[in-house]
Amino acid sequence: MRFPDSPVFTGYQAPSRVESDIGDLEVLGTLPPELRGTFYRVGPDPQFPPKQGNDIFFNGDGLVHMLRFADDGRVDYRSRYVRTDKFVAERRAGRALFGAYRNPYTDDDSVKGMVRGTANTGVCLHADKLWALKEDSPPVLMDPESLQTLGYHTFDGALKSKTFTAHPHFDSETGEMFAIGFAAKGEATPDIAYYVIDKDGRITHEAWIKAPYSGMVHDFAVTKDYVVFPIVPITSNEAWLRQGRPHYHWDPRVPVYMGVMPRYGRAEDLRWFKGHNRYSTHIFNGWNEGRRIFVDTAVAKGNPFPFFPDITGAPFDLGASAPHVSRWIIDLDRTDDGFDEECYDHEVCEFPRVDDRLQTRRHRYGYISSLDVFKPWTRSVATERPMMMFNSMSRFDFEEKKHERWFIGEASTLEEVQFVPRSRDAPEGDGFLIALLLRHGQPHTDLAVLDAMNVTAGPLALVRIPVRLRPGLHGTWVPHWKRPANPLRR
Amino acid sequence: MRFPDSPVFTGYQAPSRVESDIGDLEVLGTLPPELRGTFYRVGPDPQFPPKQGNDIFFNGDGLVHMLRFADDGRVDYRSRYVRTDKFVAERRAGRALFGAYRNPYTDDDSVKGMVRGTANTGVCLHADKLWALKEDSPPVLMDPESLQTLGYHTFDGALKSKTFTAHPHFDSETGEMFAIGFAAKGEATPDIAYYVIDKDGRITHEAWIKAPYSGMVHDFAVTKDYVVFPIVPITSNEAWLRQGRPHYHWDPRVPVYMGVMPRYGRAEDLRWFKGHNRYSTHIFNGWNEGRRIFVDTAVAKGNPFPFFPDITGAPFDLGASAPHVSRWIIDLDRTDDGFDEECYDHEVCEFPRVDDRLQTRRHRYGYISSLDVFKPWTRSVATERPMMMFNSMSRFDFEEKKHERWFIGEASTLEEVQFVPRSRDAPEGDGFLIALLLRHGQPHTDLAVLDAMNVTAGPLALVRIPVRLRPGLHGTWVPHWKRPANPLRR
Repeated sequence: MRFPDSPVFTGYQAPSRVESDIGDLEVLGTLPPELRGTFYRVGPDPQFPPKQGNDIFFNGDGLVHMLRFADDGRVDYRSRYVRTDKFVAERRAGRALFGAYRNPYTDDDSVKGMVRGTANTGVCLHADKLWALKEDSPPVLMDPESLQTLGYHTFDGALKSKTFTAHPHFDSETGEMFAIGFAAKGEATPDIAYYVIDKDGRITHEAWIKAPYSGMVHDFAVTKDYVVFPIVPITSNEAWLRQGRPHYHWDPRVPVYMGVMPRYGRAEDLRWFKGHNRYSTHIFNGWNEGRRIFVDTAVAKGNPFPFFPDITGAPFDLGASAPHVSRWIIDLDRTDDGFDEECYDHEVCEFPRVDDRLQTRRHRYGYISSLDVFKPWTRSVATERPMMMFNSMSRFDFEEKKHERWFIGEASTLEEVQFVPRSRDAPEGDGFLIALLLRHGQPHTDLAVLDAMNVTAGPLALVRIPVRLRPGLHGTWVPHWKRPANPLRR
Repeated sequence: MRFPDSPVFTGYQAPSRVESDIGDLEVLGTLPPELRGTFYRVGPDPQFPPKQGNDIFFNGDGLVHMLRFADDGRVDYRSRYVRTDKFVAERRAGRALFGAYRNPYTDDDSVKGMVRGTANTGVCLHADKLWALKEDSPPVLMDPESLQTLGYHTFDGALKSKTFTAHPHFDSETGEMFAIGFAAKGEATPDIAYYVIDKDGRITHEAWIKAPYSGMVHDFAVTKDYVVFPIVPITSNEAWLRQGRPHYHWDPRVPVYMGVMPRYGRAEDLRWFKGHNRYSTHIFNGWNEGRRIFVDTAVAKGNPFPFFPDITGAPFDLGASAPHVSRWIIDLDRTDDGFDEECYDHEVCEFPRVDDRLQTRRHRYGYISSLDVFKPWTRSVATERPMMMFNSMSRFDFEEKKHERWFIGEASTLEEVQFVPRSRDAPEGDGFLIALLLRHGQPHTDLAVLDAMNVTAGPLALVRIPVRLRPGLHGTWVPHWKRPANPLRR
């Protein structure tokens, strides 16, 4: 068994595939005693070499990583693959049976009709279970401590959508989870299902809408009163799949649409707003003041994904692919169906996050992985995309409209930044920032812990994982007051 | 928690501490289809920084590694710490409670009287259990597949010795296991217990002898008719422990003694032979032709261990510390109580092994880790001892008295070599050599697989473990005909 020699499978992107338990991680520096809870993170880490000879980074099996900060200051680590139906079938076969990213036509006959999900994109805790998420399939539930896979979750059959977002949102006051499924009636369908899920994990509200065009609806926004569905021009078409072309193509000709609906509304309440051709995939947060809705996100002028070609045949434009901190403003009292865009910063960035307690409400600070182009950085040979080569961690102040930044050093890549409040009631911004630092060519990976009010000072501590991890995608922090961080010791 | 900045805890000797499962290891090259079975290997990998601030390499917690070559050609990897009493108590405490190597006077009061073993030196399969061994304590049994620790083993109380060797020997015809315990009545006692254990794991014979002086009896030899106890001048003294000095001191003034006894004999049958002051710790194998006994071993003229000081205060002598392939010959018909030594080679080497099927019988080939001083090699900063820096794998032909060698390449260290017969009945030498290659500064470790009849050609295959492993000590091969190598897949 051998992985291909291509950039996605070599160097710092080489699969790691390690499932491990490591007690008492080494700590360089001093951990703040308030940092108690569990950090989960997931990413694609292919179990087998790709069936079709090569692959894109997004198409690997989901490997969940857990760092547990116990009350006594000790940190334990555990990682486990999500036992998706795909993972189990391929482990049995000893080779890849599923083919290209979101293209069932490339699969082995033996797995036709099976759920293709890899559970590799998002992870969150809700209703006392860990949810491992890939937007092409239902959620997979896991035990939050053992990381044992419990299986695909259809809410006892109530989930009619074939898909479930990797970016659910939460209202910390009501305890509700908000989710969408796009391509909800099958690959490349324009149907979007919207679900409200209560704190006990039951679907309490559902709505079905149709997007103006079919494409990747990777994230969405929920405010106190509204839900916003951004339709961006990463378009899909069933015919391309049958032709063996990439699932998505960038369409520079179509506008961004923003579908706005009351938070507990139905399809007939939906209203579409229209903007320039733009890219946005991840959202800091959304909120509304009366009938004005704000969606803070990272916006680029062009296609961010070189492996999803431009539908017009235009070459990939690295400059246009760079996202910047931006705000989309929708005024429900406007009559022209347009919306406004404000770009606040020229920093290149991705993986926007806020203090999770403020989801659906106004935030001041955003936290983001960024690229300091005046410092050494590794241009991603795999994708030629800034996303995979962040060399800095930034806090963006939406009041002052400025960023503070920490350069992580050479030969390292920063993952998504997670804000950890100092205490349950700490004011916004008072707490810590944590993020994994991938150390290129090194046998370890570090979790950096920074003072969120003093980013430029760099880490208070580095927690060292003595394994090289493959780059991952998204993570979540579960504070100890939400669920105790029991030690993993045996 | 942080390990010291000393050589034993940094660089390629830095603790790894990773317990993991990895399915379907990557293979570079082609694995021979006959290679079916399980390779076990153990080494010291300290769970916690040393209580006394620094430590010697030998004093870490035993971490067992298993590479399983299944019938379908897939290779799985698993590693688990041995849950010794020490490991469990320290994990609970979150810090080291046991102090210096074999010195109970340096322990925390809370663990006084507990078994101090780390189970970090040897590993073997007998009576369907995996035995993890440290010569200062009883064996620890483990499940050979899950690597779950079953606990210390005293043969239902029949083991009266406080200790049990890390180098038991086996007679493949009778299925018997032969073991000693030295310092059998407590640290620094000259008492040696000798045990014969049948194929079902029961003690069937026992003898107690007293060595001419107290010291490390790390290995011994068993032949068809005799057992040989080599007493080498790595001496011990209870007073040193109370004084906080190292457990062992090299004594250049005393001879090597060889105690010879019939295989099923008693203390009164024992006869001592005497030779020059020498070092030998590991034995290829022993056999006898009538009343002539042959013990093939690696012999050095001086102290091999810089951390065990010379009792006379003499400085460490790197040249004298280098072991060479040698033979000790004892003639029971000699009347002067001397024995002969023949040195066959000027290659620097350690970790001698033979085809395990030939233990107690005459062998032709020895397999050994060696140092090609004309090729790049890493001088061990930790110990200044050749043992830790082998850059070559050698087969020594005891008939032709010459070696064949493969240089493993730069920035790598070779571990103990294991011979794997091609089949149950393959002639001696017909099979494969396997050994771990530690890749300094790399995030992976390779298992090299060579044709045992063509060592100079280098590996047929490299099996890649995507984790940096700390240097280990000894291993064992369990062929599939002895115990099936079931896949570990879940």
